[in-house]
Amino acid sequence: MDDRIREHATVLVDWSARVEAGDNVVLSVGPDAHELAVAVAERLGERGANLLATYGSGEITRAYLHAHDAQDREFSEDPSHERALLEETDVYLSLGGDRNTSATADVPGDVRSGYRRARSEIREARYDTRWVSTAHPTRALAQQADMAYAEYQDFAYDAILRDWESLADEMARMKELLDDGSAVRLVSEGTDLTMRIDGRTAVNSAASVAYDSHNLPSGEVFTAPAGTEGEVTFDVPMTLRGETVRNVRLEFADGDVVDYDADQGASVIGDILDADDGARRLGELGIGMNRGIDRYTDNILFDEKMGDTVHLALGRAYDACLPAGESGNDSAVHVDMITDVSENSRLEIDGEVVQQNGRFRWEGDSDAE
Amino acid sequence: MDDRIREHATVLVDWSARVEAGDNVVLSVGPDAHELAVAVAERLGERGANLLATYGSGEITRAYLHAHDAQDREFSEDPSHERALLEETDVYLSLGGDRNTSATADVPGDVRSGYRRARSEIREARYDTRWVSTAHPTRALAQQADMAYAEYQDFAYDAILRDWESLADEMARMKELLDDGSAVRLVSEGTDLTMRIDGRTAVNSAASVAYDSHNLPSGEVFTAPAGTEGEVTFDVPMTLRGETVRNVRLEFADGDVVDYDADQGASVIGDILDADDGARRLGELGIGMNRGIDRYTDNILFDEKMGDTVHLALGRAYDACLPAGESGNDSAVHVDMITDVSENSRLEIDGEVVQQNGRFRWEGDSDAE
Repeated sequence: MDDRIREHATVLVDWSARVEAGDNVVLSVGPDAHELAVAVAERLGERGANLLATYGSGEITRAYLHAHDAQDREFSEDPSHERALLEETDVYLSLGGDRNTSATADVPGDVRSGYRRARSEIREARYDTRWVSTAHPTRALAQQADMAYAEYQDFAYDAILRDWESLADEMARMKELLDDGSAVRLVSEGTDLTMRIDGRTAVNSAASVAYDSHNLPSGEVFTAPAGTEGEVTFDVPMTLRGETVRNVRLEFADGDVVDYDADQGASVIGDILDADDGARRLGELGIGMNRGIDRYTDNILFDEKMGDTVHLALGRAYDACLPAGESGNDSAVHVDMITDVSENSRLEIDGEVVQQNGRFRWEGDSDAE
Repeated sequence: MDDRIREHATVLVDWSARVEAGDNVVLSVGPDAHELAVAVAERLGERGANLLATYGSGEITRAYLHAHDAQDREFSEDPSHERALLEETDVYLSLGGDRNTSATADVPGDVRSGYRRARSEIREARYDTRWVSTAHPTRALAQQADMAYAEYQDFAYDAILRDWESLADEMARMKELLDDGSAVRLVSEGTDLTMRIDGRTAVNSAASVAYDSHNLPSGEVFTAPAGTEGEVTFDVPMTLRGETVRNVRLEFADGDVVDYDADQGASVIGDILDADDGARRLGELGIGMNRGIDRYTDNILFDEKMGDTVHLALGRAYDACLPAGESGNDSAVHVDMITDVSENSRLEIDGEVVQQNGRFRWEGDSDAE
């Protein structure tokens, strides 16, 4: 076994999920994430945690959904057995690793949305655990990234095996700026957007539940915006639900999307916006700060953390960003889209520039051309 | 996809597990059982059942157990999240399909037994569902059977895709004989064993929960014997816990094993007998009646159902064989071993020969040499 697989497992179990003896752990294993799952099982045995492995396969989901749909049946309620499992679960570790990243591409959007809606209680129960999503570098992910397999492994482990404590210290600066601010303005080519963030708490997403952070890799600071006004262009291409989207443009008024457009894949965006009311509002504003990620790989888990990018998500907000007891934007969807801020761009908080052409204020003058 | 995979899924879901709309189903998927899992998911979607897939991998279990053991930690209690899941589960479908049938071969017997003991409530909860164990014909199983892959697929589907209703009718005759009988005597080379069966109910194991039968393939009639006396030789070689055992001989007095021996693998038998008190008593007497199974393949799921064989299990008895409310022999283990009865053998119930040299009474005179 590649030593990096064992290191990945150790970071996941100890730094990210803070697993302790007696914890009830669910390990969701993608079909090609087997090796990472074995390494994680080893760590869990060492820590004295209880392990149940589930199987996360897009092909199984697709077969189930197509057949279910063909019977013209509604998804009436969430499965109580899965909910009972999650209600007794302390730690949920998702090891992504499908053999085909487009495995569910031909499932109609309305079927997908109906299934997600029916599973909202399941999702809430999972969010109530110390959950962490990571990905095992697979050949399918390498292909999606347009990279050779060994090249992709190097890329992925550079992003995952970082000095997380040191990155957390740097990100704390951005969190402080956002926590103290009232309004954010993002200006770039095709983008001039303002969002209110007063009363919201930013998450220093340092790849650990101890930081309210649930992705490995992470390396972003995010908050839950409100009252969005203006327009934004997402110039980083990506695959959403099996389809490529390019240059998605959204226009907002009083928090809601009032118009949308894209050079490619506009219908996917339309499907997402139609999922429910919350899908037309932003749930997240995130600032990518993981400079171990140096290229787009068409995988949101990595792309949104990349330095010199900002991303926004339609749909669900994370409770961690809201005052205690309050919930933010609610939706069955959470769809991130990314804009490159390395050139001709600036991010302002209450009128002060905090990032220009990718460089943060504390890094000194920007090297604007 | 091979049509037979879809047929296998249909038999499993409809004939074996009697899945209905709204059922909470757990689908345990072996690493190489993916294709069968996809076919089963399709059926479950059609039926409107709720699906949660778990991952059944010997390598994960091995990694967990070795690491757990290295910490010198006791398995103190069963994981409450897995128990909660099973308590809300209607149907548990296990699709065996590991990539290496010896994946857990180097886990010490005491670690294995400790783990099984700690999971007794989990096991009980699973037995309270409409559970069915089947196997996807894999390359690992072909190798274990000493067969080519395509040859093994033909073998497996011959055993699985049978006319189960017609076999159930034939097996009903044997069930009646056992239900009405008080004592069974098995005589063969190296075997002269008597068991009491009065008050016990035989199971017509026709591969369906509707018959209290939980294996696919099945094709055996079994009951729970008591007060075993005499000696038995299991002349069908098999792999137990990763080791080959040959010609295991057990000597019984008043129901308990008082001596044991084997041409090969005696220490494995010793480990099993030491698991707990119940492991020294028989939990099952079974008569193989599936003539679609025409050779040994070193896989108990198939071997014990083969025509012209009788098998006995050390350990746990099935409640279905006991009067309502009573439990039979209790143990954390259930280990089947098989004896060939095609030659020089007879099975008597209350002194009457019901099977001689493999032929049942209702099949006319035996062709004894």
